[in-house]
Amino acid sequence: MSTENETEINELGEFGLIDVLTNNFPLINESSIEGVGDDAAIIQHVEGTTVVSTDMYVEGVHFDFMYTPLLHLGYKCITGSISDIYAMNARPEQVLVSIALTSKFTVETIKEIYKGMETACLNYGVDLVGGDTTTSKAGMVISVTVLGSAYQEDLVLRSGAKVNDVLVVTGDLGAAYLGLQILEREKRVYLAEPNMQPELKQFEYLLKRQLRPEARKDIYEGFRALDIHPTAMIDISDGLSSEILHLCKKSNVGCELLEANIPLDPITYNTAIGLGIDPTLCALSGGEDYELLFTIHPSDAEKIKNHPDFTIIGFMTEPENKAILVTKSGNRYPLQAQGWKHF
Amino acid sequence: MSTENETEINELGEFGLIDVLTNNFPLINESSIEGVGDDAAIIQHVEGTTVVSTDMYVEGVHFDFMYTPLLHLGYKCITGSISDIYAMNARPEQVLVSIALTSKFTVETIKEIYKGMETACLNYGVDLVGGDTTTSKAGMVISVTVLGSAYQEDLVLRSGAKVNDVLVVTGDLGAAYLGLQILEREKRVYLAEPNMQPELKQFEYLLKRQLRPEARKDIYEGFRALDIHPTAMIDISDGLSSEILHLCKKSNVGCELLEANIPLDPITYNTAIGLGIDPTLCALSGGEDYELLFTIHPSDAEKIKNHPDFTIIGFMTEPENKAILVTKSGNRYPLQAQGWKHF
Repeated sequence: MSTENETEINELGEFGLIDVLTNNFPLINESSIEGVGDDAAIIQHVEGTTVVSTDMYVEGVHFDFMYTPLLHLGYKCITGSISDIYAMNARPEQVLVSIALTSKFTVETIKEIYKGMETACLNYGVDLVGGDTTTSKAGMVISVTVLGSAYQEDLVLRSGAKVNDVLVVTGDLGAAYLGLQILEREKRVYLAEPNMQPELKQFEYLLKRQLRPEARKDIYEGFRALDIHPTAMIDISDGLSSEILHLCKKSNVGCELLEANIPLDPITYNTAIGLGIDPTLCALSGGEDYELLFTIHPSDAEKIKNHPDFTIIGFMTEPENKAILVTKSGNRYPLQAQGWKHF
Repeated sequence: MSTENETEINELGEFGLIDVLTNNFPLINESSIEGVGDDAAIIQHVEGTTVVSTDMYVEGVHFDFMYTPLLHLGYKCITGSISDIYAMNARPEQVLVSIALTSKFTVETIKEIYKGMETACLNYGVDLVGGDTTTSKAGMVISVTVLGSAYQEDLVLRSGAKVNDVLVVTGDLGAAYLGLQILEREKRVYLAEPNMQPELKQFEYLLKRQLRPEARKDIYEGFRALDIHPTAMIDISDGLSSEILHLCKKSNVGCELLEANIPLDPITYNTAIGLGIDPTLCALSGGEDYELLFTIHPSDAEKIKNHPDFTIIGFMTEPENKAILVTKSGNRYPLQAQGWKHF
């Protein structure tokens, strides 16, 4: 990936590289007492409770440089990671980023990825406070740890859903998965016919959902504006089915999910049909939507009715009922996790 | 690595694997409110300040399965990481562990690594509260994030050293580096002559320092017992030279390091001579000792004199003096960082 004007990493060394990568990151939050540059970062979360989550992104598994713009990769590593903090109803405030890379990557390449991270950090008010930089034997691995802050009584676990609670999802589902299908298809076309120019304009929404997803900061803020306190919550990273099953298991409840209510963007629906994929399946098993899935007490349902960001997609039932998909035609099937099939 | 009695990872899936790996980890600390199993862990550090640090360990770079026992690998990933927290004069309380692995690793292999982590967590009173599990395209990558707790006034940064402060190091240096040289030599012998039985008994101390290092929890406790408050501190992961230069740069001071005072175990000294390596160089540039390097006000020097864990190796000077190595023969050389040459 090196051209004449690019810098090889070994010209800088580890500490030079860290300086170049982290220089531009300001510390925004009062809770970030010390950032990059000591043995550890120093944090003081005045709300008293710290939430922490970590995610790993692997080249060839989570991203492919054939179609992943560097800026977007950096952006997605941050937004995908802080989504977990919003899913606790907490505010993300700090990230630590570790990166393992081979010498095929130049300083300019890595800087571009960190520029994407910087944009995400600014958009979400998050400080980069630490990390590690090392060599990899093959490909790139990025590890992101996020710290967030909350008053303990505001935190929402996966375990608080009660029978009759209403199941709600934000935004729409399945688009990120279809974006990936489109990119994989274009990659195959390109490998067979390198001169073909892809026509991707019509899939812009799907590609953005896959390549540069946002985390639902607006929903975290919306809960406060609307005075809604979810009883249980999770973010959708592995697909709706898998996440509903997590909520049911942790809360010891069943669920009826109404297929007819699952929010799909028209582009998602039409593209799925065009590719011969069941649109519902994209939502159930696609993953990477980074929407929030939560339950509320039925008395709170009125507050979100007709709100464009929220869709009621079902309700929680006795645990014996298990998690059930009620199809548009009225058939009832047990929900199955299609989640993670990496191995 | 799979034999008849071993379990392939895809038989369990991600969540099954996480359950198997994390089931045995108890939550010891009151500050660990919620551990593995939700979108994020919940932490409440009553001292008010959280310190956080992260490290990445890459197969083929930081460890080699030809000579790294699985239990030791897990152990070292934890102790190597929490060493950074002691270097802040804080108490490590939580870890998050992410692991990327290929299907060549069986569940039993991964469990063994986590068993080593569990032993380290118990020995150091640290709770595993989260992590991520994913596929890698080549080899294993482990990312460890550690959270620690302290009163802000107790924290020791790299930046607090003053002119005339005394420079102190714990334990002895260079052994971990020589352990690695011995292992690499035996690997070459084995690859050339697979039937050779290595004779490693005499190198036991060096191998233990390389393969299963400890973090200096006892020193953290010793500071309290002896009423010592270091003015600056760092842990030795990249070698004494590199760490001294960090202290000098961050504190804006110079340093005189007395070669004659650098603590070397006799086995380290003799093995280095036997291999034709300068023993001092092992200490200066070897790294991975996980000892603590710190400065104290001269009036505190009396408290550590003749203490077997502490050695005074120099003193801090005006910044114009820069960092100088004073050799046994009285020559003076500028200290140079040999640190990280991975790329």
